[in-house]
Amino acid sequence: MTDAPHPLAIAEVRLTPVLVADPPLLNTQGVHQPYTPRLIIELVTEAGVTGLGETYGDTGYLDLARPLAAALTGRRVTDLNGLPALAAEVCGGSPAVTGDSPVATDADAVHAGGLRGARTAEKLRLSVLSGFEVACLDAWGKATGLPVHALLGGKVRDRVEYGGYLFYRWAGHPGGRGERDDWGAALDPAGVVAQAHRFADTYGFTSFKLKGGVFEPAHEVATIRALAAAFPGRPLRLDPNGAWSVATSLKVADELADLLEYLEDPAGGTARMAEVAAGTRLPLATNMCVTTFDEIAEAFRRRAVQVVLCDHHYWGGLRATRELAAVCRTFGVGLSMHSNTHLGISLAAMTQVAATVPDLHHACDTHYPWQTEDVLTERIAIRDGKVAVGDAPGLGVTLDRDRLAALHHRWLADDGGLRDRDDAAAMRHAQPDWTVPAVPRW
Amino acid sequence: MTDAPHPLAIAEVRLTPVLVADPPLLNTQGVHQPYTPRLIIELVTEAGVTGLGETYGDTGYLDLARPLAAALTGRRVTDLNGLPALAAEVCGGSPAVTGDSPVATDADAVHAGGLRGARTAEKLRLSVLSGFEVACLDAWGKATGLPVHALLGGKVRDRVEYGGYLFYRWAGHPGGRGERDDWGAALDPAGVVAQAHRFADTYGFTSFKLKGGVFEPAHEVATIRALAAAFPGRPLRLDPNGAWSVATSLKVADELADLLEYLEDPAGGTARMAEVAAGTRLPLATNMCVTTFDEIAEAFRRRAVQVVLCDHHYWGGLRATRELAAVCRTFGVGLSMHSNTHLGISLAAMTQVAATVPDLHHACDTHYPWQTEDVLTERIAIRDGKVAVGDAPGLGVTLDRDRLAALHHRWLADDGGLRDRDDAAAMRHAQPDWTVPAVPRW
Repeated sequence: MTDAPHPLAIAEVRLTPVLVADPPLLNTQGVHQPYTPRLIIELVTEAGVTGLGETYGDTGYLDLARPLAAALTGRRVTDLNGLPALAAEVCGGSPAVTGDSPVATDADAVHAGGLRGARTAEKLRLSVLSGFEVACLDAWGKATGLPVHALLGGKVRDRVEYGGYLFYRWAGHPGGRGERDDWGAALDPAGVVAQAHRFADTYGFTSFKLKGGVFEPAHEVATIRALAAAFPGRPLRLDPNGAWSVATSLKVADELADLLEYLEDPAGGTARMAEVAAGTRLPLATNMCVTTFDEIAEAFRRRAVQVVLCDHHYWGGLRATRELAAVCRTFGVGLSMHSNTHLGISLAAMTQVAATVPDLHHACDTHYPWQTEDVLTERIAIRDGKVAVGDAPGLGVTLDRDRLAALHHRWLADDGGLRDRDDAAAMRHAQPDWTVPAVPRW
Repeated sequence: MTDAPHPLAIAEVRLTPVLVADPPLLNTQGVHQPYTPRLIIELVTEAGVTGLGETYGDTGYLDLARPLAAALTGRRVTDLNGLPALAAEVCGGSPAVTGDSPVATDADAVHAGGLRGARTAEKLRLSVLSGFEVACLDAWGKATGLPVHALLGGKVRDRVEYGGYLFYRWAGHPGGRGERDDWGAALDPAGVVAQAHRFADTYGFTSFKLKGGVFEPAHEVATIRALAAAFPGRPLRLDPNGAWSVATSLKVADELADLLEYLEDPAGGTARMAEVAAGTRLPLATNMCVTTFDEIAEAFRRRAVQVVLCDHHYWGGLRATRELAAVCRTFGVGLSMHSNTHLGISLAAMTQVAATVPDLHHACDTHYPWQTEDVLTERIAIRDGKVAVGDAPGLGVTLDRDRLAALHHRWLADDGGLRDRDDAAAMRHAQPDWTVPAVPRW
C-alpha cells in the first residue's frame, strides 16, 4: 500500500455538537426547549476539500456518530452504498438512545419516538449516517465543481417551494429562559393568522401548515377556518401528531374537508390511519406512520397514507430520499418533505434533493424561519416561499467558524439537560405536573 | 451567452447501428436471426471526452434515438433526471415501432412485445434513453476519473456473478446463413447438458438458465432433470417466455419444485402469473409481466412474482435499475438481471450497476458468451462465472473503431430484413408456414 491516498479519500472527520436557540413552539408532547441540539459534521478529503453535513445532535446520536466518523477515515466520499452496512457494523451493538425501546409498537409510537414515529436502532443509525452522506456529497461536489443536485442526477426545477410552518406558541420561554423574539404569543385563531401574515409578508409563503395536537380539536378547527378566511384558496394543512382517536380524526376531516390540502397524522399508527383514510376523501399525510422503508408495504397495502413526508435525516440521506420518491411514484402515493428544527446546512441539503425529484407536488415543510441562529456565513434566503437551487459546487453554503464555535460553547457549557431534546421537560417549567399525554388524547 | 461551454456539456452524439452475429438459438417465437441489430452510442463532451452506450438497434429505436441525440447537444452529462421528460418531448409523438400496437394487453403481450413483455411508447423511449444515460455516465466518469459504479454510489462487491444461459439450438442457421460456430446442435437433454459443461469449463458458470417454451413441457422438464443430475445442487432456472397455461405451469412447477431456483414467466400476464404463484412454493421470476414501473403495483399486490429480472435497457437506465432495486427491496421481492443479445458495452453497464445493488441474490443473465463479435478492443472476461468490477474511469471499456466500422458496414449492406429482429421470420427459413404461436401454447 505505497500508493498516495486518493484525493477523494476521507482524511479527517470533525464532529461539532451545538445548541441552537429555539422559540417556545407548542406541540402535543409539550413545548420546544429554549435550545435544541444539532450535530455539525465536517469531513475533509485528502485533497483538503471540506464537506458539510448536519443531523440530530442528541446524545444518543453523538454516541453513534463518533464511531462512524472514525470508521469513515480512509474511505472515499463516493463510497455511499456501503454506508448502511458500515454503520450497522460499527454502531450496531447498541440501540444507543437511553430510555427508548429499540423497536416501538403502534401504541407507543408517539411516546418513544417523539414526533417522528417508530424508533428503531436502524432508524437511529440512518439518522446519523445521513449527515455523513450529505457531507460526502458536499465534498465530492466541491472537489469536482458540481452542485449536489448534479450528483443526484440534476435538478428538474430551479426553485423549491416551502410552506409557512405555523405554531401555537408562547411569547417567551417560562422563567425568561432562552433567547427572546418579537413574535409574541399565538394561542388562538387571531394569533395564528397574524403569524401567518408575518410569514407571508417576510418570506412570501403561499401555503401553511399548522402544528396541532395542542388544544382540543374544535379550537384547532377554528384556527384553520380563520386561516382559510384570511388566505382564501391557499393550501392549508393541520398536523396533530397522532393525538386524535379515529372518531375525532373523522369528525375533523369531515369539518375541514373543503379547506385542507391534506390532514397530517391525525391518528397514530398504520391501523388507525387506514381506518381514517377509509372514511374520508381528505388525503392523509404522514411523517409518523411511514418513517422507514420497512413500514411502507403494509401502509401502502392498507392505503393508510396518500402523502409521505420524507425527512432525509431519518430516511438515510439524499439518495434514500430519491429511492423513497421512486417507491411512492410507483404506488401512486404523493411525496413531500418533513422538517424538524434544523439549520442552513440541512435546508441546503433538503433543497438540493427536492430539486431533483420530479413528482414533488406539495410545498415542503421547514422550521428554518424559526431558527434565528445558524452556522453559515450567510442565511439561506426564502423568497416567494421558495429557495433557489444554486449551481455552486456542493451544497453551495459556507461554514462560519465563529458562529459554530459560539454555538458549540453553548453546548459545552450546558448543564441543564438541553443536550437531549425533551419537549415534556420544557413544558414542566410551566406546568410542573406535565407528562406526555397518552394517545389518543382527544 | 458568452460563457465558454461547460466541459461536461455534450458537444456531439454519434449513433452507429450495427449488425452482430447471433447463433441459431431457439425460443417460443422462433429462432434468433443470423445477425441482430444493436445501436452503439458515442457521446463527446466539450472537453473531448467520449462516453459509450449501447441499446437495441431495431429501426423503431433508431427513429427515436436520432431526435433524442440531437436534443442532447448542449446539455450536460450530469443532467440525467431530465432525460425522461426530454425524451417524451422530442420522441413523444410516435409509438414508432412499425407493426406494434403502442399499448399491449395481457393477451398480446407475447406477440407484440417479443420476449420482453408489454410494449408502450414510454417503454420504447426508456429503451433508447437508457443507452444515452449509460453514455453520459461513462463520459462523466472518464472526465472525473471515477468508475461508473462510483457515480451510482459505489460498488458493494468486487465481482458480479452471471449464470450460464443455455438454449436449445441448431448447429447452424438454415441455408447456411450467418456465421458458423462449433457448438453443434442442442435439441435434447444430452445436448443441453453438453452445452452446460462447455459453459462451465470455459466460463466457470455455476448456475444455469434454460430458455424454454420451445418443446413440449415434458421434454423441457426432462432437460432440467438431466441438468440437475449433471450439476447436482446448482441453481437452475427454466424460462418458457409465457408459453404455458396456468395448469401446465402448475404441473411443471410441481415436477421441478425441488430442482429449480425459480421458474421464469411460465404463463403470460399478471393475472395468470398470480394464479400460478398462488399454487406453487416455487418462486416465480419475470421479465415479461413486470417490465415497467407502472406494472409493479398490481403485480406486487397480487403477489404474482417473487423475483423481478431487471433490464436496464428498458427500465430506463442504471439509475432506474437502482430505483427498481429499492422498490423490490421495500416490498420483499427479489431482484436479478435479464439479458437480450448484447455486446460488451452493455455487459460493462450491467456489471457496474449490479455491483452497486446490495440485494442481488441471484446470478444475472447474460447472452454475452453467445456473441463472438464485439466492438471493444478487448472482450470482457468471465471467470468463475463472474465479471470483475474494475475501478477504471467510466465503464472501463474501449471502443475498437475498426470492429465498429465492420459491423456497421454489415448493417449498411443489409437488404434482407435483418435491421429489425424477427425471430419468427428467421424460423420461416426452416419452416415456411411458421407464425408466432398463440399463447398459451401448451
